[in-house]
Amino acid sequence: MPISLPDRLLLGPGPSNVHPDVLGAMASPLVGHMDPAFHAVLEEVQSRLRGLFGTTNPMTLPLSTTGSGGMEACFANTVEPGDRVVVGIQGVFGERMAEVARRYGADVTRVESEPGTVLDPEEMAAAIARVEPVVVAFVHAETSTGVCQPVEAIARAGRERGALVVLDCVTSLSGLPLTLDAWGIDAAYSGTQKCLACPPGLSPASFGPRVLERITARTRPVPVWYLDLSLLDGYFGSGDRIYHHTAPVSAVLGLAEALRRVDAEGLEARERRHREASRRLLEGLAPLGFEPLVDAPHRLPMLNAVRLPEAVQPVEAELRNRLLERHGIEVGAGLGKLAGQIWRIGLMGENARPEPVDRLLAALREELA
Amino acid sequence: MPISLPDRLLLGPGPSNVHPDVLGAMASPLVGHMDPAFHAVLEEVQSRLRGLFGTTNPMTLPLSTTGSGGMEACFANTVEPGDRVVVGIQGVFGERMAEVARRYGADVTRVESEPGTVLDPEEMAAAIARVEPVVVAFVHAETSTGVCQPVEAIARAGRERGALVVLDCVTSLSGLPLTLDAWGIDAAYSGTQKCLACPPGLSPASFGPRVLERITARTRPVPVWYLDLSLLDGYFGSGDRIYHHTAPVSAVLGLAEALRRVDAEGLEARERRHREASRRLLEGLAPLGFEPLVDAPHRLPMLNAVRLPEAVQPVEAELRNRLLERHGIEVGAGLGKLAGQIWRIGLMGENARPEPVDRLLAALREELA
Repeated sequence: MPISLPDRLLLGPGPSNVHPDVLGAMASPLVGHMDPAFHAVLEEVQSRLRGLFGTTNPMTLPLSTTGSGGMEACFANTVEPGDRVVVGIQGVFGERMAEVARRYGADVTRVESEPGTVLDPEEMAAAIARVEPVVVAFVHAETSTGVCQPVEAIARAGRERGALVVLDCVTSLSGLPLTLDAWGIDAAYSGTQKCLACPPGLSPASFGPRVLERITARTRPVPVWYLDLSLLDGYFGSGDRIYHHTAPVSAVLGLAEALRRVDAEGLEARERRHREASRRLLEGLAPLGFEPLVDAPHRLPMLNAVRLPEAVQPVEAELRNRLLERHGIEVGAGLGKLAGQIWRIGLMGENARPEPVDRLLAALREELA
Repeated sequence: MPISLPDRLLLGPGPSNVHPDVLGAMASPLVGHMDPAFHAVLEEVQSRLRGLFGTTNPMTLPLSTTGSGGMEACFANTVEPGDRVVVGIQGVFGERMAEVARRYGADVTRVESEPGTVLDPEEMAAAIARVEPVVVAFVHAETSTGVCQPVEAIARAGRERGALVVLDCVTSLSGLPLTLDAWGIDAAYSGTQKCLACPPGLSPASFGPRVLERITARTRPVPVWYLDLSLLDGYFGSGDRIYHHTAPVSAVLGLAEALRRVDAEGLEARERRHREASRRLLEGLAPLGFEPLVDAPHRLPMLNAVRLPEAVQPVEAELRNRLLERHGIEVGAGLGKLAGQIWRIGLMGENARPEPVDRLLAALREELA
């Protein structure tokens, strides 16, 4: 009996639904990770990722891990025990950054914002000036709160003090404009299962020359062999494609097809599509008593954090289950401090269109009637 | 234009060819990592993996990383700086174990064998008695040399001295019998792209209760958040499926289908198939002057290391290229010290059958005529 799963409309925080062409590419008969035919695909993937990240970094690559492993790679390579690190925390994923940095021995200074609000760039700059950190890290699109953090001022403050700047782009890549080089970002990572509309399993990431210099200057080796960029460079950085580990070929083929779709649509059109879908959702939710958690200027279009009506809060888990079981629609629960108070409604990639929004609104109207 | 790749018969050290049903399962429309429907598949995967590993360990799971990341997980969780570790080294992957352990701060004692030969269990036991290590690690099926290491005596020597025993099963899982519990193995990892005949991208692994106790007793946290078993336990170890990172859903669906195929065939029949294919290959290669590197009792059936005829050695890279380009057949080059002297011919999973063997032999006869 073949594996059989129910049809789902995935409007949670990711994974999002995947186009059949991407699934088809992933299901291509396998080739080897040392095959020149695969290397040509990898070359294309790396080049298209540079375009989406807004960078010329040669070390722009799909790491063989999910997005959280991309976060791990950033800190594993840049932090040595005792290094000072300033982390901006607007939610669960900023919190995770602080935890990951701490485990590599970082002396972490936390700068926090209230859930649903952005970091204060001046507070970040003041912390950076006071601490003089080796690394400044924060989240562009905080998936736990739906907040979009302005990047430029914080990145500038970090760079001015000589820090490496690490940015979490898990939820923003290909849904919001990214310009790593113009912003002065040294390391950034994302995931495939959000706006790129691929299955989860890879972490597209980009590392600038200052990160590679930092690795050379380390007093002890990067603790994680699997994520050591100086080793990954042999396979992903140069044309030589020297074996390091067996690249996840099928996932890369899927990503290649997804990136072609992104580039065929054009980034601007794609971003517009995400904004319009979000607007349609919030307009439809307002009469039902769901209010956006985040102020308009800082709202993420692809991840809509909405405060639940008071009557819904005690039964929100049941309601999510009914949406899943009766309507085949997945929405995301609140995480951390916001559990039980908000939902996270993702309109990512293929789902940033009127039809998925209308399907969710119709189901909600029916369930709340 | 869709991604299009040439047809390949993958007779290298992995990946091996994947059955269309497995590719089909992987290309199922996506569901979420928190969806009960996916959790049922994961439950099945974990249960079938326990069967293949020969263990009742609850923490038997597909790690969200390739096989090398599975190795990383074993050392990241068990080693603290200054810990003594004895590593048995029969080739590149034993060497990698020593390197990974070293990066976590281990004081590594190396026990080596000549390339193509097994470790001397008495030498391992003597090192273990002398060093009294926290961890003993070695490779069951060394993919760089085609050697199959007898497990029992070394594992017993390690356990008798209270060490945790780590075993690399990347190339052996589902091609050779594994009995982790009977052998006394505390941690083992594999890859999906070898005998399981899935695409690369996951590391099936198993961890016994002594590893989890060791984590609790650590003086500092596991440095790699992504691979910290005490955190992964919430999602993979209990029935609660608490979010840690986004599981690579599609890869797990493919693995589920591959495991169903393994269990439908039966492990014994599958092992026999691997042995018979290997015999057919070596018989066919002998008249062409290719000799097995490894003595018969310690030969891996799924990874045949063969010494190249002297006339072929200087042109082996060209010959491999011709096999790939003219015949669509990939074979593996020698690694490390054996580069240029041997080939590694994989007959793994779907390819452990007469037809792939005969196709390779015919192509070789043509090229060498």
